[in-house]
Amino acid sequence: MNMHGRPPLTGDFAQLDKIIAKMGGLAEQQLDLAFVALERRDPKLAEQVIGSDREIDALERDVEALTLAMIARLRPDETGLRHILGTMRIASDLERIGDLGKNMGKRALAIAAEQRPPILIGGLRHMVELALGQLKDVLDAYTARDAERAYAVWADDANIDAMYNSLFRELLTYMMEDPRSIGISTHLLFGAKNIERVGDHTTNIAETVYFLVTGSELAPDRPKLDETSTTLIMKDKS
Amino acid sequence: MNMHGRPPLTGDFAQLDKIIAKMGGLAEQQLDLAFVALERRDPKLAEQVIGSDREIDALERDVEALTLAMIARLRPDETGLRHILGTMRIASDLERIGDLGKNMGKRALAIAAEQRPPILIGGLRHMVELALGQLKDVLDAYTARDAERAYAVWADDANIDAMYNSLFRELLTYMMEDPRSIGISTHLLFGAKNIERVGDHTTNIAETVYFLVTGSELAPDRPKLDETSTTLIMKDKS
Repeated sequence: MNMHGRPPLTGDFAQLDKIIAKMGGLAEQQLDLAFVALERRDPKLAEQVIGSDREIDALERDVEALTLAMIARLRPDETGLRHILGTMRIASDLERIGDLGKNMGKRALAIAAEQRPPILIGGLRHMVELALGQLKDVLDAYTARDAERAYAVWADDANIDAMYNSLFRELLTYMMEDPRSIGISTHLLFGAKNIERVGDHTTNIAETVYFLVTGSELAPDRPKLDETSTTLIMKDKS
Repeated sequence: MNMHGRPPLTGDFAQLDKIIAKMGGLAEQQLDLAFVALERRDPKLAEQVIGSDREIDALERDVEALTLAMIARLRPDETGLRHILGTMRIASDLERIGDLGKNMGKRALAIAAEQRPPILIGGLRHMVELALGQLKDVLDAYTARDAERAYAVWADDANIDAMYNSLFRELLTYMMEDPRSIGISTHLLFGAKNIERVGDHTTNIAETVYFLVTGSELAPDRPKLDETSTTLIMKDKS
């Protein structure tokens, strides 16, 4: 399940991997910078993040065009087809991660002029760091065609979900105690949700890599630990 | 751009359309029932919605298996390939819509025991109705391979976004005025976000149908009117 014994990719397949690596790097960077813009309340950086999402979108279109051409031209066998379609799917998840980074950038812009002290930003930073680590791991797993590593990423998403749950509760409690913080807290709430969704897309990529390497699916029901949709914390407090 | 002159689909292509129609019907039903469960605070209905998401997931896997087999077996030309890959993409958007319905179901379950009067539920109902109408239209556009109709759906998503913006502001204001409503309001806030995302997936499907019929892309930058990520309503009120 690792690179040993795997012949190096050539031609279109190598080109496809190169575009994915570039998309992945950009998606990581977007997410990182969006959070920095949010933390530092830097509207200029936020604008930059929002603008550079186009680059990822353009790369996704490149992947689509290339994969279509490859299927038509190479008439790939089942393994090749699995590779090509898997890559198309990974590109689509990376594009969504870019969108989520862009959305964080917009939130950074919205609260840039806010004078209130940052609340619970440490919790959000922790989530972003974990999400970035997972994303980096899954991209490495793709490059190395390493199913075990993809599986590890897939299993670890529960950590991001757990952090999201606890941050969600803290933010809600904070809003209750200081209603004037509701505006900024809501942006952080949706920001945390964005990161949780980045985790979900990373998990999708892990599933795709696993399938691409092994030909079999990971269990369809990943343990899903985002409990916030079934939480009504206020009931105990009102 | 309509059915006139188009020969009826046969074999695998007909089968593919049949699965998509079934998925689409289920996704509509999920969304509808999830909202009813939320509105009526019906935990039993909510559980049912949550459970039946598996059916849509299974159909997506059917679509994937069939499309892979079709590409390998039929060696389709460019038009056929566009059709097959487009359908795969539509199935993926429908699966996501099912997930969003399931998430609404979980929120319905969370607030089922809540005694507080429902707030702003009329606004949410209006959003759901609009989203369901759009979803129905885009599925019809797919069945009829009607690019104009797909374009109309694509352009109309701005309406859902506008409703989401106004509901978002109202809910935030409500939370400010009555902090004890923060728990339930947050669920409605995320519920509204779910519907807004259903609208985005419907728009994706419209883009795919347009591409599938015409071979050319709709403009990559759809006018995106969800302004909530750049809104900080509280600044005027605190």
